[in-house]
Amino acid sequence: SMSEEKLPVLSRDEIGAVIGKTPFAVWVGASLDTYRYGEVEISIPMRRELTQHHGFGHGAIIGFLADSACAWAAASVAGDVVTSEYKLNMFAPAVGQTLVGHGQVLNYGGRHAVCRADVYALSGTRKKLVATALATIFQVKP
Amino acid sequence: SMSEEKLPVLSRDEIGAVIGKTPFAVWVGASLDTYRYGEVEISIPMRRELTQHHGFGHGAIIGFLADSACAWAAASVAGDVVTSEYKLNMFAPAVGQTLVGHGQVLNYGGRHAVCRADVYALSGTRKKLVATALATIFQVKP
Amino acid sequence: SMSEEKLPVLSRDEIGAVIGKTPFAVWVGASLDTYRYGEVEISIPMRRELTQHHGFGHGAIIGFLADSACAWAAASVAGDVVTSEYKLNMFAPAVGQTLVGHGQVLNYGGRHAVCRADVYALSGTRKKLVATALATIFQVKP
Amino acid sequence: SMSEEKLPVLSRDEIGAVIGKTPFAVWVGASLDTYRYGEVEISIPMRRELTQHHGFGHGAIIGFLADSACAWAAASVAGDVVTSEYKLNMFAPAVGQTLVGHGQVLNYGGRHAVCRADVYALSGTRKKLVATALATIFQVKP
Repeated sequence: SMSEEKLPVLSRDEIGAVIGKTPFAVWVGASLDTYRYGEVEISIPMRRELTQHHGFGHGAIIGFLADSACAWAAASVAGDVVTSEYKLNMFAPAVGQTLVGHGQVLNYGGRHAVCRADVYALSGTRKKLVATALATIFQVKP
Repeated sequence: SMSEEKLPVLSRDEIGAVIGKTPFAVWVGASLDTYRYGEVEISIPMRRELTQHHGFGHGAIIGFLADSACAWAAASVAGDVVTSEYKLNMFAPAVGQTLVGHGQVLNYGGRHAVCRADVYALSGTRKKLVATALATIFQVKP
Repeated sequence: SMSEEKLPVLSRDEIGAVIGKTPFAVWVGASLDTYRYGEVEISIPMRRELTQHHGFGHGAIIGFLADSACAWAAASVAGDVVTSEYKLNMFAPAVGQTLVGHGQVLNYGGRHAVCRADVYALSGTRKKLVATALATIFQVKP
Repeated sequence: SMSEEKLPVLSRDEIGAVIGKTPFAVWVGASLDTYRYGEVEISIPMRRELTQHHGFGHGAIIGFLADSACAWAAASVAGDVVTSEYKLNMFAPAVGQTLVGHGQVLNYGGRHAVCRADVYALSGTRKKLVATALATIFQVKP
C-alpha cells in the first residue's frame, strides 16, 4: 500500500546524517543498503562483541536491527521520529558473517507509523530469516 | 507468587560466569546488582556510545536491559535460557548517569518463563521509569 | 506514580455510559468494579460461550479483559480513547466462575497512555494470575 | 519458507471439528475459508454485538481474528495447539460487512510456531488492512 514511487521525506543524505549522529549505530557499524519511501534495508558485519553466551548475535543487536529498520523506514515517510514500542520474536540463532534488517511501513497516519521488520543472517550464500518484529514509531513534532 | 526464599538454580557465581562469557554484556558494562530466585536488578553506566541521535539511551540499550533483566531472572529459576520474544514500550527519554533494569519472573512452567522488566534512568538522586517490557524466555534443554 | 487522589477525567457515570454503548462489552457482561484515576478493575462471569476448545476462557476474552482494563484506565486520565496496540501473554488456563482484569496507567503524556493489565481467574476462594498485557492507548482528539 | 505442497497435519475435517467445539468461535460466526499447510484465511460477518463504542469492530474481535488465524495456521503444521502470546497493532477502524484474518507460519520448531496475521475489513469491493499481529503458538504435548 506504500507507493514506492514517492520520494523519501528525508533525503538519503539527511537520513545518512542522522545515522552518523547516532553513536550506537556508528559503533555497531550499521550501513543503510536500501532506502526508499516506506522501506529500508540495513546490515551490520558480525563480530565477537555483538554476540551472546552461545556465540549467536545478541538479542540487543537483533533488536537494534529490527528497531532501526522500522524507525528508518518510518523516517522516510515522517521525518524525525522516535520508537514508541516494538515486539521482537527470535526463532533461529543469528549466526553468519552479516546480519540484515528489512523494514517497511505498513501504515502511516495520525503522527505515527506501524512498521514491520524481518531480520536475516547471511552465512556464505545462505540467507536465513531469524527474527521478526512489529513496531510503532512516533513522529517528533516539528 | 515467586518465593524469594528459594535459592537460584544457577548460583551467583554461575550466572556471573555466563555474563562474563556474553561479549555484548561485557562491552556494555552491565553489572548484576541484585540476584534472587525469580528476580534481578542490573545496571549500566551511561556513555556516549550507548546513545541515539537525540542523545538519549539508544533503544537497543533499553532493549538490552529489558531482555537481560528478564533472561537472567529466568535463569535463576530455569538454568540455561534463551529469549524467545520480548515487547518493549519506551515512554520517556533514557537520560542519566546510570540505567537500571529490574526483572522478575511472573510465571514459570512447561520449560518457559514469562517475565516483566522495568527500566529506570538514574539522574543524580532522581530515579525515573522510562520503559517496560514483557518477555517469554525458553529453557535450553539440558 | 499515578496519584490516586486525582479525580478521573471521565466521571464514573460517563465511563459507565461509554461501556453501556459498547455492544461487545454488554454482550460479554463486563462490570466495572473499581474506577480510580489511572486504575480500574473489571470482571466478567464465565459462561460456555466465552470458552475455547479445551474449555478454558477464550484468548479473545482474555484479550478483551486486558485491552478493556488498559483502555478504561487510560480513559480515566485521558477521556475518549482508542487502543493502538496491545501484547498479551497467557500462561495458565483461565478456568473459574469469574475472570478479573486489573489495569493501570504506567505513563501518560503526548496524547497516549502506556498501560499494564493483569488478568486473574477466580475459582472458589482462589485467585490465580493467568495472563498479563502491555498496551498503548491513544487519546482521541477532541 | 513453508512449503504449500505439504498436507496439513490436522485434516480440514479435523480442524473444522476443533472450531466447532470452540464455543466463542461458533458464537462469533467464524468460517475457515482457506486452509493450507502453514496458512489460513478466516472471516466473520460483522454485526452490532461485535463492535465498540465508536461503532468499529471491537479490539477483542480483531484480536480473535488475529489469534485464531495464527493458531489455526499453527495447527496445520503442529496439530493441537494453544496460544502463548500475541501482539496486535490496530491502525484503522474495522468497518465493513466482513472482517478477514489471514495467518501464516513464519517458523515452526521446538514445539512452537511463530506466526503472523493480517486483519482486513471488507466494505463493498474495498479490502483494507486494519491490523497486524505476531504470535507464539505452543504445540500441546500429545
